[in-house]
Amino acid sequence: MGTLVGHLLPGVGLLAFAVYYSWLTSLALLRKQMVLKHPLLPRKLLGRRLFGQISYEAMVKVVVSALGILGEYFYPLGVNRLKMIDWKDPRRLFVFKDNWQHVTMFGFFFLSGIVDIVSHAQPARWSVKLERAAEALAFYVLVLLMITHIENKGALEIRVHLLLLLPAFLIALVLTVEIWVPDNAPLWVIKSWMGLVLSTWMLQICEMYIPFTGQPWKAENPMDLAFVTIFFCWHMALGVALLVGIYSLCSFWHHRFSSWTKTLGAKYQRCAMESSGEELEKLNAEAVPQDGGV
Amino acid sequence: MGTLVGHLLPGVGLLAFAVYYSWLTSLALLRKQMVLKHPLLPRKLLGRRLFGQISYEAMVKVVVSALGILGEYFYPLGVNRLKMIDWKDPRRLFVFKDNWQHVTMFGFFFLSGIVDIVSHAQPARWSVKLERAAEALAFYVLVLLMITHIENKGALEIRVHLLLLLPAFLIALVLTVEIWVPDNAPLWVIKSWMGLVLSTWMLQICEMYIPFTGQPWKAENPMDLAFVTIFFCWHMALGVALLVGIYSLCSFWHHRFSSWTKTLGAKYQRCAMESSGEELEKLNAEAVPQDGGV
Amino acid sequence: MGTLVGHLLPGVGLLAFAVYYSWLTSLALLRKQMVLKHPLLPRKLLGRRLFGQISYEAMVKVVVSALGILGEYFYPLGVNRLKMIDWKDPRRLFVFKDNWQHVTMFGFFFLSGIVDIVSHAQPARWSVKLERAAEALAFYVLVLLMITHIENKGALEIRVHLLLLLPAFLIALVLTVEIWVPDNAPLWVIKSWMGLVLSTWMLQICEMYIPFTGQPWKAENPMDLAFVTIFFCWHMALGVALLVGIYSLCSFWHHRFSSWTKTLGAKYQRCAMESSGEELEKLNAEAVPQDGGV
Amino acid sequence: MGTLVGHLLPGVGLLAFAVYYSWLTSLALLRKQMVLKHPLLPRKLLGRRLFGQISYEAMVKVVVSALGILGEYFYPLGVNRLKMIDWKDPRRLFVFKDNWQHVTMFGFFFLSGIVDIVSHAQPARWSVKLERAAEALAFYVLVLLMITHIENKGALEIRVHLLLLLPAFLIALVLTVEIWVPDNAPLWVIKSWMGLVLSTWMLQICEMYIPFTGQPWKAENPMDLAFVTIFFCWHMALGVALLVGIYSLCSFWHHRFSSWTKTLGAKYQRCAMESSGEELEKLNAEAVPQDGGV
Repeated sequence: MGTLVGHLLPGVGLLAFAVYYSWLTSLALLRKQMVLKHPLLPRKLLGRRLFGQISYEAMVKVVVSALGILGEYFYPLGVNRLKMIDWKDPRRLFVFKDNWQHVTMFGFFFLSGIVDIVSHAQPARWSVKLERAAEALAFYVLVLLMITHIENKGALEIRVHLLLLLPAFLIALVLTVEIWVPDNAPLWVIKSWMGLVLSTWMLQICEMYIPFTGQPWKAENPMDLAFVTIFFCWHMALGVALLVGIYSLCSFWHHRFSSWTKTLGAKYQRCAMESSGEELEKLNAEAVPQDGGV
Repeated sequence: MGTLVGHLLPGVGLLAFAVYYSWLTSLALLRKQMVLKHPLLPRKLLGRRLFGQISYEAMVKVVVSALGILGEYFYPLGVNRLKMIDWKDPRRLFVFKDNWQHVTMFGFFFLSGIVDIVSHAQPARWSVKLERAAEALAFYVLVLLMITHIENKGALEIRVHLLLLLPAFLIALVLTVEIWVPDNAPLWVIKSWMGLVLSTWMLQICEMYIPFTGQPWKAENPMDLAFVTIFFCWHMALGVALLVGIYSLCSFWHHRFSSWTKTLGAKYQRCAMESSGEELEKLNAEAVPQDGGV
Repeated sequence: MGTLVGHLLPGVGLLAFAVYYSWLTSLALLRKQMVLKHPLLPRKLLGRRLFGQISYEAMVKVVVSALGILGEYFYPLGVNRLKMIDWKDPRRLFVFKDNWQHVTMFGFFFLSGIVDIVSHAQPARWSVKLERAAEALAFYVLVLLMITHIENKGALEIRVHLLLLLPAFLIALVLTVEIWVPDNAPLWVIKSWMGLVLSTWMLQICEMYIPFTGQPWKAENPMDLAFVTIFFCWHMALGVALLVGIYSLCSFWHHRFSSWTKTLGAKYQRCAMESSGEELEKLNAEAVPQDGGV
Repeated sequence: MGTLVGHLLPGVGLLAFAVYYSWLTSLALLRKQMVLKHPLLPRKLLGRRLFGQISYEAMVKVVVSALGILGEYFYPLGVNRLKMIDWKDPRRLFVFKDNWQHVTMFGFFFLSGIVDIVSHAQPARWSVKLERAAEALAFYVLVLLMITHIENKGALEIRVHLLLLLPAFLIALVLTVEIWVPDNAPLWVIKSWMGLVLSTWMLQICEMYIPFTGQPWKAENPMDLAFVTIFFCWHMALGVALLVGIYSLCSFWHHRFSSWTKTLGAKYQRCAMESSGEELEKLNAEAVPQDGGV
């Protein structure tokens, strides 16, 4: 999938996910939540009772990864890449390197989705830690495979993908830290922002396949290489702008909604009490992570 | 701006900032403050009421960065570098690489200044964290662009700029840590010191454009390369000396001023009470960072 | 021992150890233990009273390392490699480089076993810290020697061993962290998992000596190099699967056994009390690590 | 000083220092001290009252560094290397690179000694932090200059010095951590051990100047390079052995001395009380570092 479409689809998918995650984070911050709650699917879907409580995210991860894996093997239709070694060739060469790399990446995101579903079905003390660990693993695998991916490529492609690795590795690190410190709001913000940078940068890579100047990017030109880094910095600013925009929209919606609620029932005082109860909850929440997740 | 002036102006500017910051840190240490307070502009300036409380630092950051950006585009007068691609050339080459790099660097410091102003105008639990994060981002961008900056340069220039990156990256790391641990005095000292090293080292780079021996530095000479590192170590000692000097001056001023106050009003006992109150404040201050900035 | 057998024996040994450690971890998690207890040998063995309480692990470490060292020197029988310098040669060349490297590695695991035995015989506040430190040292030495080991080797062998270093270095890091944070359950899980990955990867290296396609792996083929990384990612997933499998078996055994106990004596209520006592124990356990192991 | 003597003198000096520090650490552990106390010089020396309380270490650091600096400039007698640029040469070349490097290293240890003396004379809340910071800085400078030192050298010399950098950098890191966590016993042990490894490794480098096989080490021989790393691992074990030896001697002396004291006065019960008082002290000691050293 080293093509425009191969970068566009994951880029758009990641962007949708990052926007969704930024929206969750913004709401959690506005509501002063101690825990980032993931909205769950309704218990009954199409009249059938589901296995358990499934979050939208887990569902999307599983379905998209599964489609991605099928696409790698059988798209375009009529093709079958479900083999690794060319047995007909006496040299027994490996084949479809890129596809197996992409399948492995998708596979770990699929695994992360499965872990989410299982841990939501049987919530336990370990659930959140396992979810974060599975997500972190998926990003570490992404980094590891990307490093192999850029071997024997041109200087421009290496540069572009190294800059892609930067946010991916940071997300993996933040997720690893979240195994021990699960409910830290600044980490949610960093994840949201890095997710936005990662996805807009993937869309930038798409632009390189159809450069809007009409002239292809040139790896041998130091000017082009320098501007790649400059653009990456701008994408970091763009990520900040997107995050601020999403937060502002949520803030507008949140205040409008909550003022409407207040006018209806004059629940102000109960709210105040709840908020002091929240303080207690907060203290509890703080006590828990310190036990090192035993 | 790969010239003498291009290094002298930022160097002098950074030095002034680092000295100012060291002065703030010294006073905070002498007064045993738990929080590093940034002096604010008077609420009314030139008869006009300002948008909100603005610190001197934020104002300087915004104004200097804005001037820097304008200078990159339109200095010397009559020049206009406000384009990125040479559309007249059929090859559509990128132009003004260095200027766009510098504009990007200035832009992130401008952003940091804006964040400071906004967070001072509407102080919230998140304010300090956001200010530190924006500053850290500015320094990370500095490092990232500097790495691209030194490509295809001589060994001497690479060495000199790598040593410049060292304090810049450390400042970025310390600022990142301060997102979670905002009021830690040793971190203020390290920042002050690294700021002084960074700025005096920039002035050292200026010296390389007008070497006082009258002979240019030679990249091909291992002797010259070795002395670059030796001089950097001396600049670290110089930073210590400057910091000790600034602290001593502040200490002299502080003790003189406070002894004068004491003689006037015999406030000794009230001071002692305040100091025990400070202990309580300290405990509160400690309790807050532990909630992970939620 | 750069041969099939030389990788197979340590691989199988490590796998057995990692499975045993995963089993211990699973049981500790199921029993909600705060401390990972290492089963001890019976106090009397073959009618003789032992020096002290010896854990099975320590015994195995000591015996296997000693056998390994002897094997390096005297296997195949009749050989004696117990010299380092060829004194007969006037150039006084070093000889048996690989054997001395392996002996050094075994030696540090031997040392770790001895530390375990001594610290079990005279349990003190420092015991656990010293055991972890000695284990960490053994893995750091492994990494250091492995780095020298892959010098002047082909690209394929370097890649394969670099990927071996990754889990080894992570285990060393986790063990180092455990000097200060000894009883953190997620760290046990990471160690178990990394141990499984390390050992199955060693078995994968064995496969490279007898490739099941009948064709040797080729270092000069980028395809082969790419699939090495892909397979490593699969081994990480395999490690997860093995760990889940071991945990499931333990869980089955644990619930069966504990329900049988409960039916016998109706100890449910006492269990509940114990569990609340466990909470107290937990608080104590948390208080201890914070003193920085003084 | 790239000679036998140039490595022997610092090596023996460092070894003496490391042994002294290991002895202090052992006693502190045996006495269950919370703070590592540095023995002080008598207040009156040769009939003259000193400036303040000076520890033996500080005195030795200052005197040895001063002698080292003088030796670099004026040894052998009659030589004067107190110039940096050859003004007679029209090319204005830098001269005496190695000497200025060594002087810079000694200078930072001199600075660390001065900081110790000043902070002992006027003990304040900041004293211990400043002492650790100055020591850490000295070791960071050592590492930075060593990196320049090994440029344009042979593979063997680079390898030997890289392995020297490893313990030096670790000591610098541990000292940096001690700025925030000053009284952590495992850190004392790691420092002692790394100090022993650093100094015995410097003596190993001396051996390379007078190889006991009578044949010089050969950089172009991979065998020799491999054995360098093997020997470094052995030096790590040797460091452990030395530390255990010093601790055993201290333990023997401590128990003999304390049993003698006990027999005399039957102070057992008072001891027990002291130990419970120590518990309180410990809690206080723990509370203090958490305020972030303000």
